[in-house]
Parts: sequence; C-alpha cells; structure tokens
Amino acid sequence: MDRSTSVSRRDPYATSELQNGAAMGDNGAKRSEGEDIMSVEKMFESEAVPSWQSQLTFRAFIVSFVLSILFTFIVMKLNLTTGIIPSLNVSAGLLGFFFLKTWTKLLEKSGLLKQPFTRQENTVIQTCVVASSGIAFSGGFGSYLFGMSSVVAKQSTEANNAQNIKEPSLAWMIGFLFVVSFLGLFSVVPLRKIMIIDFKLIYPSGTATAHLINSFHTPKGAKLAKKQVRALGKFFSFSFLWGFFQWFFTAGDSCGFVNFPTFGLKAYENRFYFDFSATYVGVGMICPYLINVSVLLGAILSWGIMWPLIKDRKGHWYPADLSESSLHGLQGYRVFIAIAMILGDGLYNFCKVFGHTLYGLYHQFKNKSVLPVAGRSPNEPSLSIDDKRRTELFLKDQIPTWFAVAGYVVIAIISTISLPHIFHQLKWYHIVAIYVVAPVLAFCNAYGAGLTDWSLASTYGKLAIFTIGAWAGASHGGVLAGLAACGVMMNIVSTASDLSQDFKTGYMTLASPRSMFVSQIIGTAMGCVISPCVFWLFYKAFHDLGQPGSEYPAPYALVYRNMSILGVDGFSALPKNCLTLCYIFFAGAIVVNAIRDAAGKKRARFIPIPMAMAIPFYLGSYFAIDMCLGSLILFVWRKMNKRKADAFAPAVASGLICGDGIWTLPQSILALAGVNPPICMKFLSRKDNTRVDAFLGS
Amino acid sequence: MDRSTSVSRRDPYATSELQNGAAMGDNGAKRSEGEDIMSVEKMFESEAVPSWQSQLTFRAFIVSFVLSILFTFIVMKLNLTTGIIPSLNVSAGLLGFFFLKTWTKLLEKSGLLKQPFTRQENTVIQTCVVASSGIAFSGGFGSYLFGMSSVVAKQSTEANNAQNIKEPSLAWMIGFLFVVSFLGLFSVVPLRKIMIIDFKLIYPSGTATAHLINSFHTPKGAKLAKKQVRALGKFFSFSFLWGFFQWFFTAGDSCGFVNFPTFGLKAYENRFYFDFSATYVGVGMICPYLINVSVLLGAILSWGIMWPLIKDRKGHWYPADLSESSLHGLQGYRVFIAIAMILGDGLYNFCKVFGHTLYGLYHQFKNKSVLPVAGRSPNEPSLSIDDKRRTELFLKDQIPTWFAVAGYVVIAIISTISLPHIFHQLKWYHIVAIYVVAPVLAFCNAYGAGLTDWSLASTYGKLAIFTIGAWAGASHGGVLAGLAACGVMMNIVSTASDLSQDFKTGYMTLASPRSMFVSQIIGTAMGCVISPCVFWLFYKAFHDLGQPGSEYPAPYALVYRNMSILGVDGFSALPKNCLTLCYIFFAGAIVVNAIRDAAGKKRARFIPIPMAMAIPFYLGSYFAIDMCLGSLILFVWRKMNKRKADAFAPAVASGLICGDGIWTLPQSILALAGVNPPICMKFLSRKDNTRVDAFLGS
Repeated sequence: MDRSTSVSRRDPYATSELQNGAAMGDNGAKRSEGEDIMSVEKMFESEAVPSWQSQLTFRAFIVSFVLSILFTFIVMKLNLTTGIIPSLNVSAGLLGFFFLKTWTKLLEKSGLLKQPFTRQENTVIQTCVVASSGIAFSGGFGSYLFGMSSVVAKQSTEANNAQNIKEPSLAWMIGFLFVVSFLGLFSVVPLRKIMIIDFKLIYPSGTATAHLINSFHTPKGAKLAKKQVRALGKFFSFSFLWGFFQWFFTAGDSCGFVNFPTFGLKAYENRFYFDFSATYVGVGMICPYLINVSVLLGAILSWGIMWPLIKDRKGHWYPADLSESSLHGLQGYRVFIAIAMILGDGLYNFCKVFGHTLYGLYHQFKNKSVLPVAGRSPNEPSLSIDDKRRTELFLKDQIPTWFAVAGYVVIAIISTISLPHIFHQLKWYHIVAIYVVAPVLAFCNAYGAGLTDWSLASTYGKLAIFTIGAWAGASHGGVLAGLAACGVMMNIVSTASDLSQDFKTGYMTLASPRSMFVSQIIGTAMGCVISPCVFWLFYKAFHDLGQPGSEYPAPYALVYRNMSILGVDGFSALPKNCLTLCYIFFAGAIVVNAIRDAAGKKRARFIPIPMAMAIPFYLGSYFAIDMCLGSLILFVWRKMNKRKADAFAPAVASGLICGDGIWTLPQSILALAGVNPPICMKFLSRKDNTRVDAFLGS
Repeated sequence: MDRSTSVSRRDPYATSELQNGAAMGDNGAKRSEGEDIMSVEKMFESEAVPSWQSQLTFRAFIVSFVLSILFTFIVMKLNLTTGIIPSLNVSAGLLGFFFLKTWTKLLEKSGLLKQPFTRQENTVIQTCVVASSGIAFSGGFGSYLFGMSSVVAKQSTEANNAQNIKEPSLAWMIGFLFVVSFLGLFSVVPLRKIMIIDFKLIYPSGTATAHLINSFHTPKGAKLAKKQVRALGKFFSFSFLWGFFQWFFTAGDSCGFVNFPTFGLKAYENRFYFDFSATYVGVGMICPYLINVSVLLGAILSWGIMWPLIKDRKGHWYPADLSESSLHGLQGYRVFIAIAMILGDGLYNFCKVFGHTLYGLYHQFKNKSVLPVAGRSPNEPSLSIDDKRRTELFLKDQIPTWFAVAGYVVIAIISTISLPHIFHQLKWYHIVAIYVVAPVLAFCNAYGAGLTDWSLASTYGKLAIFTIGAWAGASHGGVLAGLAACGVMMNIVSTASDLSQDFKTGYMTLASPRSMFVSQIIGTAMGCVISPCVFWLFYKAFHDLGQPGSEYPAPYALVYRNMSILGVDGFSALPKNCLTLCYIFFAGAIVVNAIRDAAGKKRARFIPIPMAMAIPFYLGSYFAIDMCLGSLILFVWRKMNKRKADAFAPAVASGLICGDGIWTLPQSILALAGVNPPICMKFLSRKDNTRVDAFLGS
C-alpha cells in the first residue's frame, strides 16, 4: 500500500487518529485528574537531562536491533500480503519501554545499574526502530523493487524482456539501500529548526509518540504501560500460537484457515471470506472505522458488483480463453481501475497538501518578514514553560548546516556514480536530476506532514516513475529505470517526513537533536541490512511469492510495475472499455475527495475514502472482513468500557499484529528447511466431496 | 451414561458439588454481607404464602412446557452422544425465573397482573421441568430402550434374532412410559414426611436448588439472577450460532469441526482431538475437576495405551479380518472392559450406599424408638424459626396415604396387564415381581440420595437386567425381557429419588406438597409425550443414529444390550483374554473406590473415579478434551476472579449446553426436510491431499 495515501505509518487517515487515540488513552487518564493543567516539564523537573552522548547507550541499540527485526518482519509480511501497514509506533514505544525497563530493573536489583532509564533513551530507541523498520516500507520490497523481478514481469505481456527485469539479489539490494537511504536524513537536518521551533508545526504522530513516552516515564504512566505490555504480551502469544496452529493444516495450495469459506463457497469464489488472520483483525482495530468501512465498500463495489458484471461480458470485452491472472482479461480491469483510483486520490491530495504548503509558507514569510534565526532567544514571553525548556534543550546541541550539506553532496556523488552500476538503465543525469529536485520535495513533504500528518512519499515516487520512465524511453529499459527512480525519490522524501516527526518527538521529550541524528543514522544502517535479509528469507522460503492468489501476492509490486509500463508505453495494452472505466474512477476519486473536504469534518466521517476503496479492487475482500471484524470488536469494546478500550486496544491490536508477524520467522525457516505441514484442511462442495470420498475409498 | 454413577443430575460426584457450588455463588454473595445470620424465612415474612391451588398457575405450566422441550432436547443429545448428563437444575431454575419474571413484569406494567410471581410458583416450574426432562434420561432412549433396536443389535453377533429385537416406534414408547413412569411418584409420596421432616435428610441437590430459588426472590438475588440470565443468554446465542455455523461444513461423514484433528492425524485416529463442541466444554465447566481429569486419564489409559497394544495382537487375540465395529474384535475389548468397570464401580457403591441406608435406618429407629407420627407438634424447642415455619407449611396440605397406596396399586395393575402386550417376552409374573420389590428399592434409593445425593437407579436397573433376563431365559427372548425389566425398575427407582429431592426443595421454599405433587404428575405426563417425540425426531433425522463413530453413537445402548446378553448367555462371545481383562478392571474399580474412601476427603480429590474413567474406553477421548478445556477455563477464571466465576460459571456453562442442545432442533428439522449442508471441511494427510488435488484437477 502506498504510504502516502493509506494507512501506512504517517498519513492523515490512520496514524494521526490512531496515535492521538493512543496518546489520549494515557493522557486522558491523567487529564481526568486535572494534572494536565500542570506543565509536563514541571513533572520532570527533578530529573536531569543526560548529555547527548549518554542518551546513546549501547543497551538502547541492542533493544532497537531486536525490535527492528521484529518490526521488519511485520512490515514485510504486510507489504507482501495486502500492503496495508498500520502504525506500529505504539508497539515500538511500548516494547522499547518494556525491554529496557525490565533490563534496568534487573540491574537495579543486582546493584549494577549505572545509568537510569530516561525518556530520552526511550526516544532514541523509538527513533532508531522507526528509521530501521521504515526502510522495510520505503525499500519497496512490496512495490517498486519487487516489481522489477521476473515473477511480477511475467504477469503482464508488456515489457517483460530482459532489459526491463532485474531479479532480486541480496548484494545489490543492500548496496542500493545504502547509497539511497541516507540522503533524506541529511536533507532534513537543516530544516529541523525551521519546522519545529520557528514554524511550530504540529506533527501529530510525533507529538502523539512524545506524549506516549512522556506518560510512560511518570509513575502512573509506567504502571499503565506495564498493564498495556501485559495485554500486548497475552495477545502476542495468542496470535503467535494461532499462527503456529494454523500452519499444521496448510499442506497444499487451497488448504488451511486462510481459505476458510466462512460465507459459503460462492462468496469464497468472489474472495468474500474471513481468513482468520490475527494480523488484519489487529490492523482493523488500529485503523479508523472509516478506513475499514471504505475497504469493505470497495470490496463490495468491485468483487460484489463490478467484476461479476464484467465477467459476464467475457468473450465480448476480453478474450474468453485468457488465464485468470492475465492483464488482458479480468485481471486487467482489477489492476488498472485500482491504479486509476490511487492516482486520482493521490493527485487530489498532492494538490491539496502542496497548496497548503505554499499557503502556509506564504503566511509564514509574510507575518515574520524575515526567516527567524536559529539563535533566537528562547525567553520570549509568549512561550510556555514547556516550550521554553524544550526550545532551550533543542538548541543546545547543534548540528552544523555545513555538515548536513556536505553530507548530502558527498552521498549524492557516491550514489550518482554507483547507481548506474546497479541499474544500467538508469543514467547518471537521471540521478542528478532527481537529487537536484529532491531537497525541495523533501522540504515540501516534511512541511506537509507537519501540517497534515500526511506523507506524500509514494506520490512523489510515482512522479519519478512517469517522468524518468518517459525520459529513458521504452527501448532503453524505461520501465526499470522508472521503478529505480521511484525508489531513489521515495527514499529521500519518505525519510525526510519520518525524521521530522522524530525530531518533534525528540523536542517534546528533551532528547538532544544530536543523539536523535546519530540514532537515525544507526537505525537507517540497520534497516539497510535487516530489510533486504528479511525480504530474502521470504523470497527463498515462499516460492509463490508475488503470484496472484497465493499467500503473499505482493499486490503493489504488480501495481507499480504496471504504472511504470503505463508511463512508458501508454494505454495500448488495456482490455476493452477498461480505459473508460479508469477515467471514471480517476475522476470519481477526485470528486469524492472534493466532496469529503467540502462536507466538513462531521459529515466527512460518513464519506468513504477512495484510496482505501481501491485496495480490495485487486486483492479481494477477505482482509476487509478481517479489518471490519477488528473494527467491530473495538466498537463493542468501546461501548462496554470506553476508557479501558482506549487504553488497551492499541496494545491488543499490536499484540495480534506482532505475534502473527513474528510467526512468519519460524514459518519461513520451516519452509526453508523443507519441513512441510502434515495436514490439509480442505473445503469441498458437497458434490466434490462425494467424488473425493469415492476416489479415496477405492 | 448411568445416572447412578456418573455426572447425571443427582449423583455424588457431579451434582452435589456443582449445585452446592452454584448455590454458594448466590449465598456466598449474601453471606459476605452477614445476612445469613438472619433467618431466610424472616426475610420472606412480609410475603404471604399462596394457597396450594394458586401456586399452580397456568402460566407456570406454559413456561414448564417450553423449558421441558428445551431440556429434553439437551438431555437427548447428551444421551445419544456420550451419555454424560450434567445437572441442568441451575439453568432450569434460572430460565424459569427469567421467563416468568419477564412475563409478570410486562403484565405489571400494563396493569394486568393479578397474581405476583412467588418462589412457590418458581418451585412448581422447577419441579415440573425436572420431572419432565427426567423422563428423557430414565426413558432409556440412550440406553435400554434404544438397545432393543436392530441398529444396536446388529453390532453384536449374539441374540440379534427377531425375538430379541424391538424397533422403536412412537406409539409403544409413549404407552410404555405412561404405564411405568407414574409408579415412582406414588411410591414416594408416603415417604415424603419421614425423609424430610423426621429423618431430616439433607438432599444436597434439592437444598441447593431451594437456596437458588430463595435467593432469586430476594431483591439482591433477583439482580444477580438477571445478570446470570444475561450471561446465559449471551453464551446461549453464541453456542447456538456456533452450532449453526459448524453445520455448513458437514456435508459428508468425516467433515466439519466435529472431526477436527486438533492434535494431528495420528492422534485423531486414536480419537484424541478437540471437536469444538460447545456442549461438552459447558459440561466440563459444570462437572468437578476430578470427573474431567478421570475421564481424560481413562482416555489415555485406554486409547493411548491399551487399545494400541491390543491392536498389535491382531491376528493372535482376535481374527484380523473383523470389521472395526465387531464385538469379537477390538470393539469387544472396548465395550466389555467398560462394562466391567461400570459394574465394579456400581457394585461397590451399591454396597456402600445400601450399608449407609441400613445403618442410618438402624440408628433412626434405635434413637427414636418409635417412628415419629406425622401430626407431631412443630413447636419443639430444638427447631429453628426457619424449620418451624417450613414444617408447619409442609404439613398443612396433606396427601392421604391411602390415596398414594391406591394410586400405586391401580397403576401397577394396569401396567401388569398392558406391559406384556408391548413386550411379549416380558411375562406378567416378571412384572408383579418387580412391583413387589420396587417400593422397597425406591425407599432405599430415596433414602440413599438424601444421605449421599447419589441415585443408584441404573444400578437397580442392571440388577433387573440380570435377574429377569436370566429368569426369562435366552430361548424366550431373555435379552429383550431384561432390557424391558430394566426400564420398569429404573423408572420407579429414579423418580423416587428425584422427587424426594424436589420435596426437599418445596419444603425449603414453602411450596405446598400438594402443589408439588400435582406439578410432578403434570411434568411426568408432559415428559411421557415430549421425550419419545424428541427421540423420534432424532431417530428419523439422523440415519446413522447408534452407529459407532457417527455423530450420535448412543454408546450406552450397546453397553446395556451387551450387559443383557452377558446376563442371559454368559461370557461365551468374548474375544481372547477379554474376560481376564474384565476381571482385572472389575476388581480395579472396586479397589480404587475403596482407596478413595479410605484416603479421606482431602486425598480422595487426587484419586480418579473408575466410573468416569470407563466412559472414554468405548467412545474415545474427544469429549474428554472438551471437558478438560471447560475445566481449564473455569480454573483460570476462578484464579482471576473467584467470586465472579462462582456466580457466573454455571450460567455460562448452561448457556453453552442449552444453545448447542437447542440447535439440534433446527438441525434435525433441516435433516428431515432433506436440506443438506453445502460444504465439506475435510482433513487430508499431505499425501492424500496431493492425490485428491490431482484427481480434482483432472
């Protein structure tokens, strides 16, 4: 799923509501006792802020490493199944706190504790894990990078020549990530002060995370966190064991709970079934109701109405003898209509956020006339106690601008030289062009995310696909060049907004920008190694990775590849009437978005989100059912006990997601070791069953 | 399952502990607030006790009728699946209270209420439902009566000639029950005063039920009851819907959740699996831990160890070419070793309870020198306020002894004339012999139940099987005569103890003995019609009823029939070494029981009950797993919140049992209407699955 547009870590639909929700759970509890009238920093007054070097502890990075692997597995699984990635910040915060707290408690008891566990250290872990597991998303293992492989290329008849294919391999993937991922980091450093102190941007996700960490480190918060961790642990175990149990019954393609025809075989054929996935029930609990309902609506619209209707026109609209997965048949409608909706929604929101950005910048400059200088006195009367103290500490440890600029230029040069060696279809001038534009787009994205919490990374990526792809041209491997360019662009732009959020968190928890920066560098480096390795494990363990209808269909790999083909080759390959339908849905996505904005916040709650509707167009509705079940559970829970639900639902959901996600580790190891599950739980129609019984009996 | 010996409604293992437990839940709550120091009757002082005629309301019998059908379905299902029948008194009490309370509340609001809902009316419902659903057990639909059918007869090679077979038919079953079921009622009436007022027997189940009803009618009790009913309703719906959901996947013999190889296919072959039965999870929650653990131990001993070992001797101990269900093969060991244990346990407990009875009677007469007269003044100083008031009301409405005696004699004559017309193998002198002995045995059983809460009905039934069977002789259809005699005997003896418990309940809730008696007559009459009809529905709807390995194997039908064959024909039919093993297990059952008694209450908790161990010998261990899961849930719940668990576990368990039980109604209607489930959820080994996939693909 596109980070920019759906429920990925930092977007306006999911993350902001979720993380505010999560933070409200903690703050709500505090607030009700009237403590929020007091300054947060006053509560922490007695605690000294450690120097930036001592915020970076060895133990923090060990914990970060473990959590990074955990979250990379989860993000990778999500990448490759549906592409819907919910915010895992809450679990990262919770688990980071839990691990280090246990550790320090143990040391404290044995008298060996030298340094207490501070919220700054917690922020360092949080930042490191976010930077590292972010690579699992922006690395494109479920989208542009895997879209280069022959597995995905074979699914379309266009551009599946050797020039437009690059098989995944551990070596070049790690190399590619290393030369590409650090640029965003350096491009955001000089902006940091402007965004956070001068512009006072909100960064809802970063703020929410900071609230979470702050509340953990107050005595009451620690107690709640402990309970939350226990809930997380319980559901983690449940979800892990459930995954393990399910495994035993999956000896064969259509076996196991994943293929349970909960609503009958007819509905199953149209991919309406509950697939008993703890992950997506958890995802449903984290995502706002509107997302889940939109996904379900999309599923009903496509698999319930449109596809059956189009199928009836088999032989007229498209040749009847095509295989199910051919892009010239029904599958073509599924993929391209979904792309049209995603592009429509993306375009609308790009314009909207870009407009906001320009408008915001205009006002900023007009009102302040000059760009405020960094060394400005923090003792302005308008600042609250909290802000004073935070600004003071945020400005204490400087990262020189020359260092950031030099870093950016050096890495850009290295990358310009080395990238054409990895993708010979991508020329050095393409890369230079990207790197010249990138900082501006990075700034836009960071600013937009600060305002709206919405990262447009994948929209910028799509921009690169179309421009660079067309520039390279079809005959020179433009499809692959487009995908590679998308990767370069997305990495820069995505890191920029992610890390701005982190800086906001650091600002509010008094973590030093320097320690944040170091933590981000270490986290990114970790991610550049962990993510390709985890992807490699999936790639080797599951041989039908990327096949439509398999356990890991990697839907966005095909979508990205087809966008690239579209950009290079035009619309020639589409089946009959498909283009018309695409135009309708492209326009529809824009109109619905416009209506949403015009309706106002209250009524917009009842208008579905086109982006979320597009996901099931291609995949089917099984995960929509999981997610709606998650919604339903949350809804009932909140009806019964709102306070408890708000405090524990994110933990329960995280437990469900993490347990199922981490089960894929032993699962893929078993697959690699050639251990096959012993039983097949099969679902046969009454007629087939009679035939099978006769066959087995004979 | 034998009522006398296992977890049926009134026996020492299950019912007493259960119902005390249930009552404790209510009383415990009251007690903690120091209210039990006060007299129960003082709390009810302000409420007038209605006359016996007005205790018998029309509405009460409507509710009783509905509940009777519900509970008959449940008992019938349990009869035909495993024969383990837990106490349903709590649910009967709860639901009866709930229905009438809702009814009267509605009438009260509309101003139409003429008569308030009293605890006496509640007792009347309770009594009526118990009398009615009791027939579902003592009618022998899962044991002696169904054991007469050709389905069961065909499973053994002995005595399966026409003379020893009587096919079920609605007409004769109803007739049989009518001439047989009322005798117990009349035989117990003259004993009532002696047992309850003079001997002051405890009747734990009756007392517990009375506590329950009393507590419902205090304001606090009503509130708790409402909550309990809500819990019951919730789990009722869940269990019903779960049964419904499961149904869709059972198109075929080995399909559906009932055949889920939870622990792998190897374990499934040895009948170790969790069959997702809400009923038996509920049963497990109601039965004491010891029963569940004993059942599991028995399962491991038999299906885990003994049967595989004996199977290895196939060809040596028994012919290798026999079918799985032949009693000359492995099945013979299963059935006869189970019978040996049941008989050993039964004999031991018969001697024990009979000894208790004689000893108790001896003391009773020795201390009081004369049998106390009924008209004794209730104002003896030793009586508490409660007892005074209760005795006063219990003695107010008399049922003349001549009426009871005359009733008994008249029905006995009718029955002696009519029974040989139903079973021509049973001669009139057999029946007269039974009717002469029966009142004494009925008294013994009622007295024994009063002391130990243990009804020995099925043991007396077995006695009749062996004596009358041998008397009639093999050549004159002795097998059938034995089974019929068992029915006559069991009905009398079982009703006697059941109704004594009810009188105790009536005594403690100030219900008039006359209204109780009328309610029992009406309830019994209802049962005589409802039970055969429900059985008929099962019999017609499920064509493999009584087949080993099917959904409704009716295990005790075969066990009873084989006991009868054994009694008539001797041990000639047993496979090699089977008799030796039977002797060992017969002796073992006695020894283990003796050890249990010698060990004292505290240590006996850790010694398994042979009777409970015998059940899975024949059936396999799947229900043991269900029941242990129920135990586990209860155990964890009690660890987490003992008070809540004690108050709500019986309601939750009842909900699970009732929902699943009542689902069999629509299920059997669907089967009768020829509506077949659409999907088969099949479990195939990896190898078979590959073959099937190839077969279906071709």
